[in-house]
Amino acid sequence: MEDTIFSKIIRRELPAEIIYEDDDTLAFLDINPNVPGHTLVIPKKPVRNIFDADDATLAAVMRTIRIVAPAVRDGVSAKGVHINSNHEAEAGQIVFHLHFHIIPRHTREEFEFWPKLATAPTELAQVGEKIRAELS
Amino acid sequence: MEDTIFSKIIRRELPAEIIYEDDDTLAFLDINPNVPGHTLVIPKKPVRNIFDADDATLAAVMRTIRIVAPAVRDGVSAKGVHINSNHEAEAGQIVFHLHFHIIPRHTREEFEFWPKLATAPTELAQVGEKIRAELS
Repeated sequence: MEDTIFSKIIRRELPAEIIYEDDDTLAFLDINPNVPGHTLVIPKKPVRNIFDADDATLAAVMRTIRIVAPAVRDGVSAKGVHINSNHEAEAGQIVFHLHFHIIPRHTREEFEFWPKLATAPTELAQVGEKIRAELS
Repeated sequence: MEDTIFSKIIRRELPAEIIYEDDDTLAFLDINPNVPGHTLVIPKKPVRNIFDADDATLAAVMRTIRIVAPAVRDGVSAKGVHINSNHEAEAGQIVFHLHFHIIPRHTREEFEFWPKLATAPTELAQVGEKIRAELS
């Protein structure tokens, strides 16, 4: 996999505001935060995204998210967090090293997450069939 | 923990378009999708969100996301996915049973994810200090 800015942060070749580190993961502040406290959690192993990640790497990342999320929330006196991630460029992935965003939220009103689509049950069933076919 | 609509889906007391199931997790289509293929992955264990989840539950959920995400992508001929989750009402959590959204994306243009905030390095350092203090 190509070297990314996250590999450089892991190797301390680029500066970052590091929140937490263990053998397998690193958590640091996003340099372009959505709100103060916006934190990234990454594995040290350079996987691209969910489509090539292994279970041990994902479990390590989620453990770090579990440890860091309450600290992010309380560190900026927030009430909740979004845990979001983008996989592939079409989903907005910019750095091709798996990462999860922890974004603190203070009030419901400040963030409209996504629009909803009115969908008939028959449409749901058709889509469900296509996805299950990919699994079988 | 209070009973939610997701507990009822797990017990088959409410219908759902189920994509995948194993001993610990369930994946089914969101009944109010953002786009066709919008899938939810939940643990069968009724944890509220990241703030009370245990590592084994999180690892099981991530394993199911890893299995289901490529099928969601390919089932609707998408290119990438968002994997998003809301923790507490202030972050938009509506059903208080841990769940991750898998949202397929076809083109970058269709979804503006979140606004960025211009932030000085000194501000980052101040926030970092507060979050690290919560961890120590």
